[in-house]
This record gives sequence, structure tokens and C-alpha cells, in this order.
Amino acid sequence: MIKAKGYAVPTAKAPLAPFSFERRELRDNDVHIEIHYCGVCHSDVHQARDEWGRGIFPMVPGHEIVGEVKAIGSKVKKFKVGDLAGVGCMVDSCLDCRSCKEGLEQYCEGSGFVGTYNSKEKDGTPTYGGYSSSIVVREEFALSIPKNLSLAATAPLLCAGITTYSPLRHWKVGKGQKVGVVGLGGLGHMGVKLANAMGAHVVVFTTSPSKVEDAKRLGAHEVIISKDMEQMKAHSNSFDFILDTVSAPHDYNLYLSLLHRDGNMVLVGLPDKPPELYAGSLIMGRRKLGGSLIGGIQETQEMLDFCGKHNIVSDIEMIPMKYINEAYERMIKSDVKYRFVIDMKSLA
Amino acid sequence: MIKAKGYAVPTAKAPLAPFSFERRELRDNDVHIEIHYCGVCHSDVHQARDEWGRGIFPMVPGHEIVGEVKAIGSKVKKFKVGDLAGVGCMVDSCLDCRSCKEGLEQYCEGSGFVGTYNSKEKDGTPTYGGYSSSIVVREEFALSIPKNLSLAATAPLLCAGITTYSPLRHWKVGKGQKVGVVGLGGLGHMGVKLANAMGAHVVVFTTSPSKVEDAKRLGAHEVIISKDMEQMKAHSNSFDFILDTVSAPHDYNLYLSLLHRDGNMVLVGLPDKPPELYAGSLIMGRRKLGGSLIGGIQETQEMLDFCGKHNIVSDIEMIPMKYINEAYERMIKSDVKYRFVIDMKSLA
Repeated sequence: MIKAKGYAVPTAKAPLAPFSFERRELRDNDVHIEIHYCGVCHSDVHQARDEWGRGIFPMVPGHEIVGEVKAIGSKVKKFKVGDLAGVGCMVDSCLDCRSCKEGLEQYCEGSGFVGTYNSKEKDGTPTYGGYSSSIVVREEFALSIPKNLSLAATAPLLCAGITTYSPLRHWKVGKGQKVGVVGLGGLGHMGVKLANAMGAHVVVFTTSPSKVEDAKRLGAHEVIISKDMEQMKAHSNSFDFILDTVSAPHDYNLYLSLLHRDGNMVLVGLPDKPPELYAGSLIMGRRKLGGSLIGGIQETQEMLDFCGKHNIVSDIEMIPMKYINEAYERMIKSDVKYRFVIDMKSLA
Repeated sequence: MIKAKGYAVPTAKAPLAPFSFERRELRDNDVHIEIHYCGVCHSDVHQARDEWGRGIFPMVPGHEIVGEVKAIGSKVKKFKVGDLAGVGCMVDSCLDCRSCKEGLEQYCEGSGFVGTYNSKEKDGTPTYGGYSSSIVVREEFALSIPKNLSLAATAPLLCAGITTYSPLRHWKVGKGQKVGVVGLGGLGHMGVKLANAMGAHVVVFTTSPSKVEDAKRLGAHEVIISKDMEQMKAHSNSFDFILDTVSAPHDYNLYLSLLHRDGNMVLVGLPDKPPELYAGSLIMGRRKLGGSLIGGIQETQEMLDFCGKHNIVSDIEMIPMKYINEAYERMIKSDVKYRFVIDMKSLA
């Protein structure tokens, strides 16, 4: 076994603390990645605090992983030692169902995908995530990282990046379209950068007037203060697409009314209290409300290549590992621009 | 002016009573239709009782109108005297906006379509509906009725028929698809007949075990008692499309979980209390929830021709005009199979 160290939540709701554990010996198709950086996702907080229930403890969170290949199994073809590599939210799936065969492992219809942490491998071993020194993963679930990007700022692309890229692509966002992004946090700020690079006219909705300038710097062409009903109303029936990244409960109907006929709004945030939906918000204008979950492996690679080409990374605040509990508190207050990334050298 | 008689709601929430009024003199492009039958839609009850507010009284309800052309304006081309003709939910629209030009007058972006009743003509005249002896309408909004169908049973096609036909067509329902219809009332029973004729495998969801046999007679291949969670669960992730025709508040999430990945559910009913929507119901499986409002004039004609070809009409219970207040009470209790149709001869 391969010795690893990291930070874990020892039991539900306890703070994160140093943790030593083991990664499996390399199988033929495994890649052993030394982790350089790991992004901190909102879902890390939810799971670390067992807010979604059924947490597996001890839990090593982290699914925005980038680093360097240290060793490869005998049959690995995609990577060689020394390559940059990344791991996102998934480390395995059945690879045999309709969704997996279409490259949509996130919707695996076998027994579901194996999460990078807080999940179980097919053999029942708990998975441990990226708040750690290294990870062993089958090569199909490892991504190639463009060399021209800041490695630390690339880490959040593995979850925040693909979660926003996938719906923008699936709903064919591009030139000539007016595209809204609701919320300017970890997900939202990536949505703005990506939609801008795809050629859309990007409009950010935020509750905070303080974020207007920053939204424009990130690539927004317009910013709407969503509490200002006059501003909102002025944009009625005008959006082709709205990407809603907010996970606090909020009024979907308000945003749906801004779509033009046949427009689409897509949710990627999970409010813990379900908002009320007026059927009329959809019936008037034949509007559609959809949802989207991260993205498949093939599409994640496409997103990374797209970001390499367009020089897109996350805006990050780098932190040492031991700062993680404080970082969680600040994230809950949305006090981060726009993603914490853990520098794994700080583990040593 | 043309003398007409009918039944009207004199003031908000009063019962319907005999009413004499006038229709406009024929303009060049008008058709004068003697009404033989008019269907009774649930929205008639809501509007007659001013439950949606802003009702215009006196109100002559009715937008499922069929009859015979009595006179035509000098420039009318589509109709000649003696033809069968119908009028649905709309009698005018701007005909100039993007939606109108695409034949989607129901989504008119001008000042909205002019409703057949409880609305105002462009010149401000209140519109009066089909619970009456005749109607004058511009020819663009009059439909040709297939001669091979029972005329009385054709009336409900003008609203219940097109409201279910349009989403089935827009979302491309057809052979090889598993299609659910939620609710077996006026709309639902048309949805079953139409989806069946389009070649889909039709599954009806109903709360009433007493409706199982009737659902099958109407064209359902399977019937699920929606209160039986075992039955519901057995169909998880299996539907291509679900048409939700229920206007009583109910749980959308339950039905969304039955869609397979990328499946669509479409609402045509308007619950007065908005149901709660869990984002996860859409995010897991990239599912979509949409809405659809009646249908355009061109599509309504297409639907009527489709029904003529496939010999599809509504199941109706014919009533005399004076029975209307009692019919409303029975509709509220869902005590009708499946649509009341007023025989206008009873007005004489």
C-alpha cells in the first residue's frame, strides 16, 4: 500500500484534522498522482458536516485535484510519469450502461458513479479525496491538465469549471445569445468566464452591488442587482439561457419570467429548502427549467482544453492545509474570491 | 350589429343566466359562425368565478366552439357559407411579432393574444365567448372542422385537444417512446388518445382505481395508481416524456423521478398553489420541466386534421344551456366523462 497523509473529518460534524491513511497499490490501469493543489468546493462543507446525511467517516474531502503523475500501472496509455494530471468528482463508474457509453459517467445507470470521496469503490473500500498528499485513480478518470495555465488556479476547473461548462455546452450557448448567470460565487464566476469565452452576451445577477465591478472584470457585459425589481423587469422575456448557480433558497419564478419564449434556465445549485414553482412561469412562453450535474470525463477534458486555449482559470485564494476549518467558515459567509485552493506543500 | 343571445355571468361570482348582446357587423375578413356546440373548459369556471382576478363582466364564457358558417366578409378566402368552422381560445393577435410570424399566436409578444372571452378586442370591445348563438371572428382565427367527426364531440378539441397536442408535437412524442399522462380529465383523456395515435407507449397516472379500465379503453397501455409508491418506484428513470394535465396542487418531484436521463415533463395545468420543486429532481438525470400554452392557429388546424384522419374526438356528456351552473359544480368534483358540451339548440 502507498502511505498518504491529509486532513480528515474524523466523525460527523467534527473539525478537520491531520489524518494518515493508505492508497491502494497501483493496478495495471492506475495512475498515482502527487497532489499539488486541491480546490475547496461548497459540497465539501455540506458533506464534512454531514448535512446531506449518510456521510462516511473518517472523511477526506476534496474533488478539485491537480498534481503530477508519480507512477503508472503497466497498461496505462494516457499518462507518463511527470505529466500534469487532475481528478474531479468521480473516480469510477460501471462504464457499461447507456450513460457511461455516451461519456456521461455522472449519470451512470449501473450503481451510480463512485465519488472521489465520501463514496465506496466497487470493492467496498471507502474513497478518500484530495485534501491529501496523493491519490491513486484508474486512468479513465484522470484528466490531462494544460501546461500553459496556473496549476493552482486550474484545480477548481475540475468541479466548478465542468459544472458550469457542461450545461453551457449542452444547451448550446454561443454567439448572439443573451445569457444570464445567477450568483457570483465559485460556480458563477466560472460560468461568467466560460459563457464569455463562448461568445455570449453575459449578464450577471447578484444581490450585492459591491460585486458589480468584479463581475465586469470577470467578463460580464451587464450586471443586474436582483433585488431591484425595476432592473429585473426591464429584462423581461429577453434571455436565451440562464444558468442558476445559487444554492441558497431563492425565487425561480422571478428568473423564469426573464426568459424569452422557448428559453431555458438550468439549475446547478441545490437549495436545502425547495423553492415554490408556479406552473404559469413555464406555461407562459413555453419556458423550460432543467438541471445539470457536473459533466462527463470526456467533456471535462474538452473543458480543460477549452480553458487552456482561452487562458481561463479560476480566481483563487491560496491557503495552507491547516487553514481549512477557517476557510469553511468564510465560505459559508461567501467571503472568498472565488475559490479557496489548498497548497499541498503545506502538508509537509 | 348582429343580435346574439347566450348565457353570461352578470357580475363576479354570480351564476350564469340568459343574456342578450350584439356581435359586430362583418368586416371584410370576418366569418359569422352559427354556434352548434360549445365545450365547457375548467378555465371557464375559474374565470366565471373571477378566481384569476381581473374578470370582465358581464362574461360570456366558452372557447371550444363549433358550428356552421352563416356569412362571410368580402375578402374571406378560407371559408364559404355552409362550411363547418370552429373557434378556440384566441380571436386575434398582433400577427406581426416573432411568435405570431412563427404561427405561435398564443405567445404573441405584441400586446398578447385577444382571448375568445374575458378579453378585449384591439379596439377595446369586450369579447364574448361560445355560450351563445353565434360569433363573428376574423378568418385567420377560425378553424376548418373535419366532416367525418361527430361535430359535438369535436368542440373540446379546440382547447383540450390543442393544449395536449401541441406539447406532444413540440417535444416530438412518437413511436418507441414511453409517455406518461398525469390526470385523466378533459385534458388528460385527450392526451391519452393523441399520444396513442402518435404511436407512443402510453401510461396513465391516476389517483382513482376506478379509472383504470376507462383509461385503457381510451388508449392507455398501462395505468399507474399514483398513490401507490411501489408502483411508482417500479417505473423510476423510465419515461421519455410526461404530460402533466393536473391543475390541483401535486408533487412534481415524484413524477420527475420517473423520467430517464434527459427526459422531459411538461405542465399544462395551473395549480392555484405552487408546488415545491427540489433542484435535485432536475439535476439528477439532467431532466427538464417545461410548460405549454394551448397551441398556435396553424397547429390547431394540423391537430384537427390529425383527429379527422385518426378518428379522434373527445368523450363528451351533452347538456342543455340551462344546466351550465350544475355542470360547473360537477366539474369541480371531476364528475364528468370527460367534457361537458353545450347543445346550442337548447338556447332557442
